[in-house]
Amino acid sequence: MLGNDLHLDLGTGGGSRRAALITALREAVREGRLAPGTLLPPYRSLAADLGIARNTVADAYAELVAEGWLTSRQGSGTRVADRVAAPAPGPVRPAAPPPLPYDLVQGRPDPGAFPRGPWLAAARRALTDAPHEAFGTRDPHGRIELRRALVEYLARVRGVRTTPERIVVCSGAAHALRLLAGVLGTERPWAVEAYGLPFHRGLLAGAGVGTVPVAVDEDGARTGEIPPGAGAVLLTPAHQFPTGGPLHPERRAGALEWARRSGGLVVEDDYDGELRYDRRPVGALQGLDPERAVLLGSVSKSLSPALRLGWMCLPAALVDAVVAAKGEREPYASATDQLTLAAFLGSGAYDRHVRSMRRRHRERRDRLAAVLAARVPGVRVTGIAAGLHAVLELPPGTEAAALAAAARHGVATEGLASYRHPDARGPAHPDGLVVGYATPPERLYGAALDALCEALTEGLGARRSASSS
Amino acid sequence: MLGNDLHLDLGTGGGSRRAALITALREAVREGRLAPGTLLPPYRSLAADLGIARNTVADAYAELVAEGWLTSRQGSGTRVADRVAAPAPGPVRPAAPPPLPYDLVQGRPDPGAFPRGPWLAAARRALTDAPHEAFGTRDPHGRIELRRALVEYLARVRGVRTTPERIVVCSGAAHALRLLAGVLGTERPWAVEAYGLPFHRGLLAGAGVGTVPVAVDEDGARTGEIPPGAGAVLLTPAHQFPTGGPLHPERRAGALEWARRSGGLVVEDDYDGELRYDRRPVGALQGLDPERAVLLGSVSKSLSPALRLGWMCLPAALVDAVVAAKGEREPYASATDQLTLAAFLGSGAYDRHVRSMRRRHRERRDRLAAVLAARVPGVRVTGIAAGLHAVLELPPGTEAAALAAAARHGVATEGLASYRHPDARGPAHPDGLVVGYATPPERLYGAALDALCEALTEGLGARRSASSS
Repeated sequence: MLGNDLHLDLGTGGGSRRAALITALREAVREGRLAPGTLLPPYRSLAADLGIARNTVADAYAELVAEGWLTSRQGSGTRVADRVAAPAPGPVRPAAPPPLPYDLVQGRPDPGAFPRGPWLAAARRALTDAPHEAFGTRDPHGRIELRRALVEYLARVRGVRTTPERIVVCSGAAHALRLLAGVLGTERPWAVEAYGLPFHRGLLAGAGVGTVPVAVDEDGARTGEIPPGAGAVLLTPAHQFPTGGPLHPERRAGALEWARRSGGLVVEDDYDGELRYDRRPVGALQGLDPERAVLLGSVSKSLSPALRLGWMCLPAALVDAVVAAKGEREPYASATDQLTLAAFLGSGAYDRHVRSMRRRHRERRDRLAAVLAARVPGVRVTGIAAGLHAVLELPPGTEAAALAAAARHGVATEGLASYRHPDARGPAHPDGLVVGYATPPERLYGAALDALCEALTEGLGARRSASSS
Repeated sequence: MLGNDLHLDLGTGGGSRRAALITALREAVREGRLAPGTLLPPYRSLAADLGIARNTVADAYAELVAEGWLTSRQGSGTRVADRVAAPAPGPVRPAAPPPLPYDLVQGRPDPGAFPRGPWLAAARRALTDAPHEAFGTRDPHGRIELRRALVEYLARVRGVRTTPERIVVCSGAAHALRLLAGVLGTERPWAVEAYGLPFHRGLLAGAGVGTVPVAVDEDGARTGEIPPGAGAVLLTPAHQFPTGGPLHPERRAGALEWARRSGGLVVEDDYDGELRYDRRPVGALQGLDPERAVLLGSVSKSLSPALRLGWMCLPAALVDAVVAAKGEREPYASATDQLTLAAFLGSGAYDRHVRSMRRRHRERRDRLAAVLAARVPGVRVTGIAAGLHAVLELPPGTEAAALAAAARHGVATEGLASYRHPDARGPAHPDGLVVGYATPPERLYGAALDALCEALTEGLGARRSASSS
């Protein structure tokens, strides 16, 4: 029987006594104050103890019986159920190392630059104007408002030739690659640039698709060397990732010739096509042959990777298969964000934001180049005409020492070697660091550059003294 | 050489002449007015023709050469590149049949009921208050603001026992099932309710996981019959889907006993746990044993399936594996929606919305029951204490005729048979229709009920005359 020492606090709030009693009893069981098997007092006596109606107690007991906290058997009263497990502690994780203070890892825009005000204004317009059906059944193809806005924007800014029917909205390049891998199948490998995101190669491998490296030089990928048996080639024509140059016009033509000859697909990862500093961005390769090339784009570099919004501009023949692969209820981009991005594009807010980001990134890139030229003359800065990162070419054999020194100086960055395809042969790229200059907040950027210069001086000096000793 | 008949419209807008010339030349190539191989005029003469600077033309040609539209060889001038493919038409799809005018398919809230104003207000608060890092690197675990708000809400409303560390945000139940299937592996089948969503069974099959049916009666799934070798059991304890009753307390205990004995996992699909009409909703089974049960929830029934926002409350031992399966860059819910839902929960707007939806759905359910009682007395309405749908029990052998009559009367709905597991044995559920009453807009609901009554009268009448002939 329930002892007198059981404290049931029904509170003094405005909620119902019934709800308060249920909560108090649940808590008592959870905390072990009411042990399994304990017989509860009859309705009448608990009601009298607590100064509440008998029916309220009966009702609360019934609720907790229905939930499984209590059991009730004819003639034996109401008891705490057996084996209501005690709450467990959260999972134990190894403490993550504290992040380095200066984040110069490539590929991330400054989260502080997200245009909250204009985005909210677009959201207000979009949610006010949207038809009711926008909040109803999901369309794996993507919101038509966004697909229409993308056709206009991508034609104007990237020279893309497509139609709303040929755009499929997705959550970013990774989602797009997974869908394409599923549609193209695992029989033929994909050709990929010998330098590229290990994440993309891993994602294809995870989908059962092998990858074959295509050598990269200062004119981009050597598309004349794409194996005829490849099912697709993944390219970064606007700004080779990460080495930095645009794909040479003859190489562009070469990729499409390969596609026509072999029946393969050119997959154009247009990850930062809008962010070109010294001149207008080179138009997308997709525009040259929309039946052989897929363009992948997203707002991850221009706005934020936290939005999970991307798109694929597909050959007509692939649309139905990709939509089917996505699946009626496949996780995909939220309708509110899709509608908001459509309004953001349509009002010119996206153009304004990209222009402002270009100015900002160009200033940062110029500052990086100037500081390095003045303080670490042994380093050559390349791949700096576009995007969110530069490549710092280092003297041969110094990459590892430079990375170690960077970490000691609180600088998070990556070496060129980590982007190299494990099977890559041919001309090895020189040692280098891939330095993202977009991420740090303004107030930390100067200090980040100072730390980088000190680290490089130390890293390269160590080698010089090592080799002179 | 370019003929005089080529019309290059540079427009009269404020943009640069260079950009206008590039666009006009691209268009001319796309439309076939400039055929492959055509020699373009020298800079000087085109500049004179168009009344623009010679450098502007040179610049435009260079741009189009870089993009691959034109080619330029020493001594042979600038030509239109070969094989720039013509734009293809969009994919040809078979025209979808027009939707039936009265949508009584279960599971979808009325899209017109989405609380646009309160959602926007929450978005404004959320995006104003969010730290910068919310727009930065993605966290597959989900935004901490949302996980904290869910812990409070789910404890209060659903009796869930969890912590922010044990919640993983996902895009809905389908995403959650796919992740769990990946983590639990394909060796052991899952037990599923003999009546349930074919979509869920198909999703598990697609992940390589077999399903074994567990019979369902008026007390819900017969959890005493879960095979000991199953790896998990998928249940709808609050409101068996689609037959409609809550899981009996002894059956709840039975499911957890099975889990403890066999080491299996109870997966609780709490798809509409908040929408109970005649009394407080029965609390979640998860609260009875958080180390043996996963709760899956989402806003798809309460707010909108277009948001793609759901959650899993996991046993501590599974958290790391599920987060890893989700993957650092896996498609997942947008940060803006996550932050907005956290603010929406925190301000009480979600509670207010659910209360208003409960009132609305209860009225619709009562209207459905009253109209059917008055006009089609041969039909018994069951499973009506919760959710967005009711089951209309029909005389034996009439389900197919009733469905056909419904379609003829413009009513989209589904038969109970389509939810039955193909391997289900034991007591077959009576014939019936699963009728969703939440979707139609207010102004169409009366007409939808009229059409349903006429269809049922016709469908059942046909059978009566058939069996009496």
